[in-house]
Amino acid sequence: MNETALFKLSYGVYVCTTWDEGRPVGCVANSAMQITSAPATVAVSINKKNYTHKCVEETGYFAVTVLGEKSDPKIIGRFGFMSARDTDKFAETAYSIRGKLPVLDDGVAYMVCKVVSKWETETHTVFLGEVTDCDHLKKDKPMTYAYYHEVLKGKTSVNAPTYAASATEGDDTPRYVCTICSYEYDGDVPFEELPEDWVCPICGVGKEMFEKV
Amino acid sequence: MNETALFKLSYGVYVCTTWDEGRPVGCVANSAMQITSAPATVAVSINKKNYTHKCVEETGYFAVTVLGEKSDPKIIGRFGFMSARDTDKFAETAYSIRGKLPVLDDGVAYMVCKVVSKWETETHTVFLGEVTDCDHLKKDKPMTYAYYHEVLKGKTSVNAPTYAASATEGDDTPRYVCTICSYEYDGDVPFEELPEDWVCPICGVGKEMFEKV
Repeated sequence: MNETALFKLSYGVYVCTTWDEGRPVGCVANSAMQITSAPATVAVSINKKNYTHKCVEETGYFAVTVLGEKSDPKIIGRFGFMSARDTDKFAETAYSIRGKLPVLDDGVAYMVCKVVSKWETETHTVFLGEVTDCDHLKKDKPMTYAYYHEVLKGKTSVNAPTYAASATEGDDTPRYVCTICSYEYDGDVPFEELPEDWVCPICGVGKEMFEKV
Repeated sequence: MNETALFKLSYGVYVCTTWDEGRPVGCVANSAMQITSAPATVAVSINKKNYTHKCVEETGYFAVTVLGEKSDPKIIGRFGFMSARDTDKFAETAYSIRGKLPVLDDGVAYMVCKVVSKWETETHTVFLGEVTDCDHLKKDKPMTYAYYHEVLKGKTSVNAPTYAASATEGDDTPRYVCTICSYEYDGDVPFEELPEDWVCPICGVGKEMFEKV
């Protein structure tokens, strides 16, 4: 049994949002899928450790913003690598109220769902939501998790024809990897020469959080 | 509410297989996702009208073969557009027994699962399976549903740099579409001049099943 085979399942990159006593909260989710079409229902799996999980439990509502390939990668850093417990993830993220829930503006589509059923596992709850509102946002290709992993994490340039291949094979150049979000620096300027105020394009932390590997 | 926004969720293309009294059966599924990692569990949503649904119910086991971009598109025709009730879908499909279940050879990975929980909706059952065996198969990129829809359905050539765009915009050339699987003919030879034994590359039906649109 080789559990890395499970990485071959395909996912999108979503931000699941809701309210926390009037304050918008949210987290990145990869596991979302439509279950039925009439009525339209969508299932989303959220780790119980996420603060957003508690808030979806309490409100009974969640929204899903589908990120696109051109969505600002900082959204993933903010919503995927920080906690709503101590961060206002929406402070620098444009959003609008749609179907009574906060939805990010920088996505390709959104759906607002009312929780109609839940499926408990030891670590995650799968919320089944009936879609009460949904529409398109910006025109862009939906981001897949594979795209995020292969392109945005900087393993190779988005413009390279072979971006699916590993750029590091047979290459002894030192690599610099963000210890927070695993982004691998891939710019033309040598890492050591980057200005001191340079920050990780994914999660926004400074150079000092990068590790030479 | 614009329900086409739901098409922006990302999916893979999978073949869900099991046994029917010693006979291998299976159907195409798009909705599969990992739910927990320890133990590894995978959820797959199967329409109750599928013959394979009944067989998963009866055996309590299912396997998922993850198709790749280079997997034979006829697999999708056979497993997605025909019924195991009256077709032996495995007659012309290479498969092997892995973890006691039939798994297609022409995929990038597989996982064999024991059903540990079920979630009933009006039209679909979501089976939660604990992974008892999984491994990689051929080296290839997993096929996404978007890839299948945009490339294999022939809306434009896989080699075209703009394959995501519609090839038919502003074009008055008659189009020929398979009435079984919606594949749109896109070859260099005019459709009328194709040999009589030409068959749909996706589902395998003859020219007579194509409609001029």
